Amino acid sequence: MTDQYAPSPLTAEPSMSPALRWDELPEGPVLVLLDQTRLPVEEAELVCTDVPALVQSIRTLAVRGAPLLGIAGAYGVALAATRGYDVDEAAALLAGARPTAVNLGYGVRRALEAHRAAIAGGADQERAAAATLAEAKQLHREDAVASARMAASGLSLLDELLPGGSHRILTHCNTGSLVSGGEGTAFAVALSAHRAGRLRRLWVDETRPLLQGARLTAYEAARNGMAFTLLADNAAGSLFAAGEVDAVLIGADRIAADGSVANKVGSYPLAVQARYHHVPFIVVAPTTTLDLDTPDGASIEVEQRPGQEVTELTAPQAAGAGVEVGGGMPVAPLGTQAYNPAFDVTPPELVTALVTEYGALSPVTRDGIVELCAQARQEARG
Amino acid sequence: MTDQYAPSPLTAEPSMSPALRWDELPEGPVLVLLDQTRLPVEEAELVCTDVPALVQSIRTLAVRGAPLLGIAGAYGVALAATRGYDVDEAAALLAGARPTAVNLGYGVRRALEAHRAAIAGGADQERAAAATLAEAKQLHREDAVASARMAASGLSLLDELLPGGSHRILTHCNTGSLVSGGEGTAFAVALSAHRAGRLRRLWVDETRPLLQGARLTAYEAARNGMAFTLLADNAAGSLFAAGEVDAVLIGADRIAADGSVANKVGSYPLAVQARYHHVPFIVVAPTTTLDLDTPDGASIEVEQRPGQEVTELTAPQAAGAGVEVGGGMPVAPLGTQAYNPAFDVTPPELVTALVTEYGALSPVTRDGIVELCAQARQEARG
Repeated sequence: MTDQYAPSPLTAEPSMSPALRWDELPEGPVLVLLDQTRLPVEEAELVCTDVPALVQSIRTLAVRGAPLLGIAGAYGVALAATRGYDVDEAAALLAGARPTAVNLGYGVRRALEAHRAAIAGGADQERAAAATLAEAKQLHREDAVASARMAASGLSLLDELLPGGSHRILTHCNTGSLVSGGEGTAFAVALSAHRAGRLRRLWVDETRPLLQGARLTAYEAARNGMAFTLLADNAAGSLFAAGEVDAVLIGADRIAADGSVANKVGSYPLAVQARYHHVPFIVVAPTTTLDLDTPDGASIEVEQRPGQEVTELTAPQAAGAGVEVGGGMPVAPLGTQAYNPAFDVTPPELVTALVTEYGALSPVTRDGIVELCAQARQEARG
Repeated sequence: MTDQYAPSPLTAEPSMSPALRWDELPEGPVLVLLDQTRLPVEEAELVCTDVPALVQSIRTLAVRGAPLLGIAGAYGVALAATRGYDVDEAAALLAGARPTAVNLGYGVRRALEAHRAAIAGGADQERAAAATLAEAKQLHREDAVASARMAASGLSLLDELLPGGSHRILTHCNTGSLVSGGEGTAFAVALSAHRAGRLRRLWVDETRPLLQGARLTAYEAARNGMAFTLLADNAAGSLFAAGEVDAVLIGADRIAADGSVANKVGSYPLAVQARYHHVPFIVVAPTTTLDLDTPDGASIEVEQRPGQEVTELTAPQAAGAGVEVGGGMPVAPLGTQAYNPAFDVTPPELVTALVTEYGALSPVTRDGIVELCAQARQEARG
């Protein structure tokens, strides 16, 4: 595993990603995942030889994060194609693995369309599989490029919103190289501020219930030598009140046509607090996260996860397959019912700016979202 | 341990409290605590034979909650007096055990003053000790009575604010019989709504980092047969947005003269969200929590607790003495710095009403607070 991911030019092979890589073993092609449920305690790899194994890894959050889910989905279809499984069935399984991140369906669809186009063009199974894999690799590269562009745009926006240049950024969940073909979304912006010597502090929300902030963002921040402090999500209020937060930066799992942002549960309370304290609330996401088919926030399907994630504590070491079936230490009385939505929805009026690979959109409006999608389609054709 | 605590008349012995009781063993008097760090997994008792043991129990949160800390502090002074230790030294140790809850200092002071008055009145050590113990028991009884009065006032207020009568209440941390000589503060209001058939749902914030909501409030709610649902603190935002919260009820650890409320970290973000969603935010606390010597919110000393409470997960079984010295499962990279304030401060303008044993104060103003204190002093004299 490399310490840092350098975005590769669009023509090269995708670089070794810390989170996910395609490998050609003597026994056949595989998709190798860094098991994120075990971080930061150990860096263990999960080798997926078929689609059901990948679907399981997506459900248990061994692989997670909106952009990376898109890449994983595309490679999953390529895996089915190269190994001779039913490609349509594989695509359906993958697309349904988790409901909220739109990127997953997007990546699956792109790979599936590449396969169909190849078949329609007269390719045999082997050549169609190669075309599918090429499409997955292309998406992987595009995401790395988008990531680098978002980092640059996000830093410009920060410098513009917060002149004086020493930023204290609060972030939620994990949005770095573990969720991306590149260095991520919101985290990539903080990282580029760090490299430019303009990150005073990264405040890292631990992100209950699954602690992606404590386990993953702290891990990425530490590896990059950033000045960071971890906090219980609850403690963000005290930081806002004390004027210790200059901006909130988060990622997104799905952005509806009206600009409503579905992201990790706890994002919306931060948006409300940011508004109350007059702190910019910035969403960083590639255009693959935009979903014109979902008209508004109320139409976004929010994944409800098992209550055990709240009623039991699960240590990273033991997480693995255990996350979904319990197996943690109980912290609530037996039989306690829990409300455990994985995401919440922030309306566009609470979002100061949306940073995509095409720059910052502010205010976030339906017209602006439609225009971004048009721009993305144009570049895809170009 | 009794399942439910019935407030006793002011003349009777304090009833068996689930959280704390004075006992006279052949070996001498002791203060017996229910070890709250082990709940809900086991109901273990801690027997304190001296003040350092009690101070340790206060620091590790084996005994906790503002009103109960006052009672424990008073019994602690009585323990020193009856066992013949230096009473002034004991009082100083106890008062300094935790900085934020004003009740602790209040209880210690009342017991100490009773001791001094007895000595000044010519009492010998034994009679002075008896007077000290009597004062602790009196405080214990008064708190039970205050609790019952707050429950009644709080329910009236809910019925007035929310006509129609089926309340969905969100609460944070633990404020039931585990923190009180009676049935508690905010929780006691929810419990009386439950008994009156008007509690539709108690939403229980898990309350990171020490999970007092999951471990203690869920335990008390379950034992009382209330309809309750546990959630990660982060998920409260989704409930507000969906219109699923009719009122927020919390306790308090110290209320400054201007009405600023120090309470468990995470209270202030709820106040901000409640305001944004036009939901009443109600603080329930006895007048012993009011502190005219602290002029405003900025003057409240907020206890900063060890970072390990955030960087490590500690199971209830193993909690005991381990809470303060670590010993949990690491969830963040080694060496991660954490920001871990135990409390936050909510300004009076975000508090819809303050419910004390003298009824509801709304709006919360400096004049109102001063008047409540005068009322409490008058009743104490009467």
